Order: sequence, then structure tokens, then C-alpha cells
Amino acid sequence: MNANTYVVGVDFGTLSGRAVVVRVSDGAELGSAVHEYAHRVMEQTLPTGERLGPDWALQSPQDWIDVLRTAVPEAIAAAGVRPEEVVGIGTDFTACTVMPTRADGTPLSDETPGEPHAWPKLWKHHAAQPHADRINELAARRGESWLPRYGGKISSEWEFAKGLQLLEEAPEVYARAERWIEAADWIIWQLTGVESRNICTVGYKGVFQDGSYPSEEFLAELNPGFAGFVGKLATGQVGDEAGGVRLAALGDLAGRLTARAAAWTGLPEGVAVAVGNVDAHVTAAAADAVRPGQMVAIMGTSTCHIMPSDQLAEVPGMCGVVRDGIVPGLWGYEAGQSAVGDIFAWYVDNFGADGHERLTALAAKQPVGGHGLVALDWFGGNRSVLVDHNLSGVIVGQTLQTRPEDVYRALIESTAYGARMIVETFEKSGVPVEEFVVAGGLLKNPFLMQVYADVLRRPLSVIGSDQGPALGSAIHAAVAAGAYSSIEEAAAAMGKRTENAYVPDQARADAYDRLYAEYRRLHDFFGDGKMLHALRAIRNEAHTS
Amino acid sequence: MNANTYVVGVDFGTLSGRAVVVRVSDGAELGSAVHEYAHRVMEQTLPTGERLGPDWALQSPQDWIDVLRTAVPEAIAAAGVRPEEVVGIGTDFTACTVMPTRADGTPLSDETPGEPHAWPKLWKHHAAQPHADRINELAARRGESWLPRYGGKISSEWEFAKGLQLLEEAPEVYARAERWIEAADWIIWQLTGVESRNICTVGYKGVFQDGSYPSEEFLAELNPGFAGFVGKLATGQVGDEAGGVRLAALGDLAGRLTARAAAWTGLPEGVAVAVGNVDAHVTAAAADAVRPGQMVAIMGTSTCHIMPSDQLAEVPGMCGVVRDGIVPGLWGYEAGQSAVGDIFAWYVDNFGADGHERLTALAAKQPVGGHGLVALDWFGGNRSVLVDHNLSGVIVGQTLQTRPEDVYRALIESTAYGARMIVETFEKSGVPVEEFVVAGGLLKNPFLMQVYADVLRRPLSVIGSDQGPALGSAIHAAVAAGAYSSIEEAAAAMGKRTENAYVPDQARADAYDRLYAEYRRLHDFFGDGKMLHALRAIRNEAHTS
Repeated sequence: MNANTYVVGVDFGTLSGRAVVVRVSDGAELGSAVHEYAHRVMEQTLPTGERLGPDWALQSPQDWIDVLRTAVPEAIAAAGVRPEEVVGIGTDFTACTVMPTRADGTPLSDETPGEPHAWPKLWKHHAAQPHADRINELAARRGESWLPRYGGKISSEWEFAKGLQLLEEAPEVYARAERWIEAADWIIWQLTGVESRNICTVGYKGVFQDGSYPSEEFLAELNPGFAGFVGKLATGQVGDEAGGVRLAALGDLAGRLTARAAAWTGLPEGVAVAVGNVDAHVTAAAADAVRPGQMVAIMGTSTCHIMPSDQLAEVPGMCGVVRDGIVPGLWGYEAGQSAVGDIFAWYVDNFGADGHERLTALAAKQPVGGHGLVALDWFGGNRSVLVDHNLSGVIVGQTLQTRPEDVYRALIESTAYGARMIVETFEKSGVPVEEFVVAGGLLKNPFLMQVYADVLRRPLSVIGSDQGPALGSAIHAAVAAGAYSSIEEAAAAMGKRTENAYVPDQARADAYDRLYAEYRRLHDFFGDGKMLHALRAIRNEAHTS
Repeated sequence: MNANTYVVGVDFGTLSGRAVVVRVSDGAELGSAVHEYAHRVMEQTLPTGERLGPDWALQSPQDWIDVLRTAVPEAIAAAGVRPEEVVGIGTDFTACTVMPTRADGTPLSDETPGEPHAWPKLWKHHAAQPHADRINELAARRGESWLPRYGGKISSEWEFAKGLQLLEEAPEVYARAERWIEAADWIIWQLTGVESRNICTVGYKGVFQDGSYPSEEFLAELNPGFAGFVGKLATGQVGDEAGGVRLAALGDLAGRLTARAAAWTGLPEGVAVAVGNVDAHVTAAAADAVRPGQMVAIMGTSTCHIMPSDQLAEVPGMCGVVRDGIVPGLWGYEAGQSAVGDIFAWYVDNFGADGHERLTALAAKQPVGGHGLVALDWFGGNRSVLVDHNLSGVIVGQTLQTRPEDVYRALIESTAYGARMIVETFEKSGVPVEEFVVAGGLLKNPFLMQVYADVLRRPLSVIGSDQGPALGSAIHAAVAAGAYSSIEEAAAAMGKRTENAYVPDQARADAYDRLYAEYRRLHDFFGDGKMLHALRAIRNEAHTS
């Protein structure tokens, strides 16, 4: 392999896009650049001034193109490599971020910028909850075989819920939408001129299982006008690699860089472009954790758990299991904790004037259990293992001696208990978790990491990069460019993982077992939602009456 | 009645003593003065430098005498009355504040000031908990008839627990202690030169029921050396009015002011001195709430509930029921919430940078239940109705949208739910609560008062004085001086109570019913102590290992 061969990975996040230039031979990250989206997240108004409803969240396609035009050339320059030494580009995106386009890929927001439904709906657009509820209710009633693959509930964030909202709230836009496409695939279309659908979002967000989408009959029962919805996802019939639009395996070549995209990026026309991907899933490659049983926890504001396995099982509360969803040939599992870093930020912003560093320093001095507290980490609801976003947080054991750092520590621990609950649920369901690998921003807090090791009673591996998704995209680019024969091979060469970065302390782990037993008792008592749903209902009624 | 006749009430608190001059005819408060104790509360060291153990709290008798020497003359001067117009003086004290003295009343701390056990032990001296535990355990095992009169448990604060600690930790001091006397009675001894024991502390703190103290046999089983302990409480046999030391009814004349005490106070020698009393209990007179079913809640750092009744019942979790304990001829009930204002202070000090006023203003704007929270008010344990100081607080329903004022409001509400639980427990036990009368520092917060009215679903009466105990003592002085024939009559003339000061709002009360139902579910789940005791045990082990 030529030592002077490079790939570019581009990570499209919620507020900005990041490009990184990576050496193909060893994964060295030579330069990177970030471009912040001009429109950030549109939650109140459109650029034309129209007001948005509650729980809306939109993005602008132009912002993504601007990342290609600015961050990619800047990263190349920062890396000090020559563009002609770059052999491929890969991307990852937030998901489900989905948009209506014409058959040629033109965003409908270009045509009718004053129409909210014409814009891409960001993953955290939550205004389709009533539609998701109906989908889940009908699927459960009909016993749809795909439902258990998603822990028994699909999310309001996903393609069908957002699509049904589009149909029912803006039928004219729905009619004009010849495509309903993930931003992850749309950006590839812009780079290559060729439309494709990556198997990751098709499975996790498009509810594609065992070779098919939900049936026309099911969709028609939701709304007769929704019967043909699948035609917007991929024209004609959809099959493995057949059909009007290619259903593309991860790591495959999506196409080659067009002249237009070459002009945007400064890269040579014709370099390999990898099939689209999702930020969390592509991180597995960056952590060289793409073998069965390697669970990668991407810990940030929330935590996403990604794990390949050779076992298929219906794990309670998982977000989804998708064949080939992380790497070809394996089942890809996803689970999640709705709020993690968000909890600590909320606490510090509202209750902990001292700030994260000081609270961490004080908390770290305490013996396990010294604060006498246990909390339920449901401040943002519970995705896995209960799939109930109407749950809320609980803090137990406070006295007049309780100090802010005590609660802070208890909150950190509560998220570790939540993670342990997920790991145990996988294992009880027959899906072994062999290794727990941490990526994401919370890696910066070694105290928190040690808590996780002690609570989980297992060593933690950690990713060796702080730009995991972009590195993962670059690894996929290397595979697409033919530099490696598989994602596994490329990840082994270019991914970065430190094993045993944190190892559990026996005494602390034993002490945590006792606290975890109390966490489980709280989990059982509050997990039925009886009290927490009642409190939420009272709250909602109070605010509407 | 002479319009120019006055009485002085003196309230001996935890950190200071307050004297108030009151007109006998109508209770007008004409002048007052406060004297702060030079030694405040001794919790770390003695004046001689000796260190104290954990949970110790002592006071100096000299500080109390200084209140008589400074605050009383200052109050007279402030009132602009002539000393010869004063016909009586009454006092109230914290309780159980108890001390060892010689047979002539000389405090042992005068003899051996370097001996911690020679000093008065303040009510909040909690180092006798192991002794209280043994007393309770033995009393329960033997089925002592007095135990249910105290909700099934006596407190570590009381005379027998502190006395047993004295015996076992300092037998030499115990042997020298010819008297073991409440400060409430000691101060009367100093004023009159005559020893007496007021029936209020004798009953509530001295476990005197149905004409007798716990038996010698019981005491000997605790410790053979403890068999004669009752001899220190009152010499010779103890009876209604017989015996070596007078057991004195509330409102009675304890004696007349000695020349020495006249010199201290500037009052005429020979004026009437009322029998000693306790701050909470004497407040009932100040609020003109001494008839059956008038529950006075003295709401401050904690809440004490005082209620006369013509019904005798064993109310679960009450602090005590004592015949003639508030006014002669009625049963006097006492219940309590371990922490109330203390909870709000703890929260603001640690978690609510905005302070009470701002948090109250923000909380007051919310609709009932708008925060989605419910809390258990057990941050300082639970006195009534569970009598379990090893319980702790619980906060349920927090989300990432929860703001500091939400939790603040939920904490206020939790104490109101705790009060409702007490009221309902009395009524279920056959002891009607006809009127809920509020006294104490928390009266200053009208929002909090309205919450209580709404949660309790009943109008609140409020006391018309912010120096309730001192006014109550003055009322007792007027009775002792013969200006009125009974406490009831004096209270009706001199006490101050506004009925219907806060009335419940129907809609808010209905909304609170739903939240209170959730509070009760939490009460049931956590009330068995299983989880909260486990957390406390883990905490304590963590700090000792």
C-alpha cells in the first residue's frame, strides 16, 4: 500500500460538519476542519420567516453542501497532502434526517422555501409523535413481524412517522415529493450523481426487514393515501441489489466523484465515494470494534450502543436489529440511553453552580455509596430497555447533609446502572456482549469512565480518536476505494482502540452491586410507568387547562 | 381589670432569649427585647477547651440568667411601662433541655466546668441515640403501657435517654447529680427559689403517664445503676400534687419572684411566676387555640403540631399524648415533622442559587402539578407518622426541563402532604382536628400558606403575633397572677388568631388530591424503610470502612 495515500471522512453533525484527512495505511489523522451550519437547527422559524410548530426541527441542504465546499478543502490544506493523493471520500450523517426531493434529487425546499414541510426534518424533529403512535398501535394490533425487530416500538423520528406527518399535514408537498430520502443518501447523490440507499438507514430508520418494507395493505390502513409511500423510498420494487434504486451495502463504492463535486471539494474527479452511513454506526469501524460482541457505546449528550453479532434475537427495548446494518454478514444491534451527558449538563446548568470540573473533583473523592443515593436515569425518558419516553427521573435518599457533588455523582452512576441494565438484557436474550468499547465526548471524564468500569464489572476499551465518526467514514472510504477488502480489515489497520483502558476495582464493583440492586428495585417499581405517567399527565393537563 | 396591668413573657430559644411585655387586658405587645446567648450552642468544645463528641449539643445556664438580667429590663424600658405595673412573669423553654444539679439547684457545670456531662444537654443533643434504642427495645419487649402514648418510640432527646447516657458515660457526675431537671423548671427555681416540675415536660419528656414514671424494675433491667433514676426527677414519691417536689399544673402559680430575681429583672419582688412551660405548647395560648380539636402547627425549621382534645387515642406516630399537657382538663397531643423550613434552607443553600424570594415568586406562578413532580419530605427523617429518623428524601418526576423553582415548589408541597398525612392519621384514630392554626416563621411566606390550605382542603387560621411563645408565656403569667381564672379565658382575651386567613381553592384542592394520591403511593413504597435503610447502611459503611 502506498504510504502517501489518503482518504477523507466527512461527519455531518447536528450543528456542524467535520472533515478529516486520514492516511490509508495506518489511520493517522493528518488534518481536519469544521464548518458550522449557517442555519444551524431551525426550530422557531424558516429563513423566509414562517413560524414552525412545537417540536419541529429542520435543516438546510445548502449547509451540508457548504461543508463539502469549505471543510473538505480546509482539511486537505491542514493535512498538508496533495489532493491527487486522496483516493476516496466517505460520509456519515445524523439519522433519521430525511427530506422530500424531486426525482433528480432537487430538494423541495429549493422550490417552496416558505413551506415548512418542504425542508429536511432533522432527527430531533419530534412533531410526528401522534403518527408514530398510530403506526405502533396498528402494527401491534396486526402483529406485524417487523415490530419486534425494533424493541416493539418505532420512533417518531423515523421515516414512516415523518412521512405520514408530511402526507396528512401537507398533502400537496407529499404529492410533489418524488423521493423521501435520508440526508445520508442525499449527500452521496450530490457527490456521485447516482441515487442509492444505504442498508443501515434503510433498516434502522426505514423499517426494511427480511427483504421488504411494511406492506401496502398496512400503509393503506394507516391512511389510504399512504399506500404508495414506499415508492418514494426507492422507485420500483426494492430488492437486495435490484430495483430502480440501488440498495447499497456498507463499505461499498456508491459511485465516483462528479466534476461538480470535485469543484466543491477540491478533490480529483472520479475518486471513490463510499455508500452513505450513520454517525454512530460508522464509529464502530473507527474503534476497530466490528466483530461479534463488540459493543460500542458512543457516549455524549445521549448514548448509542452499536454491536455486531452473529446471533439474531429479539432483545427487549433495543432500537433495532438490522442484517448487515453495521458490517455486511452480521446482525447489527442498536440500543440507546435517551439522555446521558444531557443529564449532567441539565444538573450543572440548574442546580450545580460549581460546574462539571469542580463537581467531578469532589465526587471522585467519595467512597462508593458514601452519598447514600440512588437515581433513575430517566430524565429524558428511557429508550432501552423500556422504550418509554414518558418516564422521568427519580432521586432517592437525600438528607439535609446531601451536597451538590453527591447528587452529581449519583446521576453519573445512574447512567452507568442504565448501561449495565442494557448489557444484561442483551446477554439474557442470548446476544453475548464480549467487550464494552467507549467512544464520544464523555471519554474526557476519567472519573466517569472508572464508574462505568466498576458498575459494569468489566474492563472498558476506549476509542483512540476524538473524531470517531469522521475517522470511521474515512475507513469506509478506504474500503470503497479498494485499499482494503473489507471493513474489518480496514478497521484493524486504521481504527484505534485501547483495551483495558479502565479496569474494575473488585471492592468498588462489589459495593456497586448493592447499589445496583436498589436501582433494579426502583426500575421495577417505577418502570410500569403508573406513577410517572400520572405525573406527566397531570403536568400536561396543568399546562393546557 | 386595671388597664395599666402588665405581664412579662420570656421565651428561651436555641440561640437567644426574648422578653415581651404584654397588657393583661387585651394582649397588646408593648415592647420586647432579645438577648443572644454568649455561648450559643456548644457543639465542638467546652468553654474550658475540652472537645465534645459527635452529635453533642450543650448550653450554659449563665446565658439564661443573662436573659433575665438584660432582655427583661430592656423590654420593660421599650414598653414604657413602670415595673410596679407588672403583675407576673411567665417563661417557656426549648425541651427536652435537661441538666444535672445539686439539691439546691446549683448546676454541676459550676462545680466541674471541664466535664462535658456536667453541662445542660440541649434538646438537639443526639448522642444518646443508642440509649434511646435500648429503652425502646426493652419497653417494646416488656410491653410497657406508656410506650404507645409516644407513638411507639421515645426520642433520644428525652430525659431518660440522656440520663442513661449520663450514667453510663460519666457515673461520677451521675452520682453527684441530686437533680435531673428540665431547664424549663430550673429557670422557675431560679426565679422563685422553689423547686417544681411542670406537667408538660414531665409528661412529654419525662415519660410520666397515669400517675407514674417507668418502674424501677424496668430501669434496673436497662442498667442496675439506673434503678433509682426517678429520684433525681422529683424527690420522694411523685403524685398529682403530693411528693417532695411539686408536680405543677400549667397556668398555676409556681411561686413569687425572689429578691435576687427581682434584682436581675428589675421587676418588683413578689410578683407572680407561672409554672414552667415549653415553647411549642405555650404557643397554643398565644394563638387562642386551647380548645379541643384546635391543632396549632408551629412551622419553622421543623414543624411541631400541638392539639388539645377530649379524646384519648393511640395515634400512630405521634410524639406524645399527655393528660393536662397543654391545658388542664384535656389530653394534649404533640406530633411533628422532622424538617420543614430546614428542607427549603438546605435546598437554597445547595441547589437554588436564586434564593427563597425569587424561587417562591417563580414557583407561585405555576399551575398545580405543572412541574410534574412529587417528593417525599423525609430529608430529615420522618417523625410523624412513621417515627423513623433513618428515612430520607425522594424526588420523583424530574425531566431535562425541570427548573430549580419546580423542585422548590415540590419540596414545599411535600411538607404540606406530610401535614395532611398527620391530620388524616389523627382523624382516622378518632381524634378530630377541627381547626388548623399556623404559627411560626414560615407564616412569612403567603404562597406556602396557600399551598397548605389547598393541600389540606381546609381554611387556615393564623396566629396574630410573631413572638408566639413569649406571648403565650405572658398569658400564662396573667393566669398565674390571678387576672384570669383559666388559660382558656386568658387566651380568649389576650391570644391572637385570624380565622380563614387562607381558604382553599376548589380547583387547586382537587388537583392536589391527585398529587397527594401519588405521595401516598410513595409513602407506602418507601415507608417500610427497606430501600432507604439499605442506602443509609451502605452510606454509613462507606464512611467507616
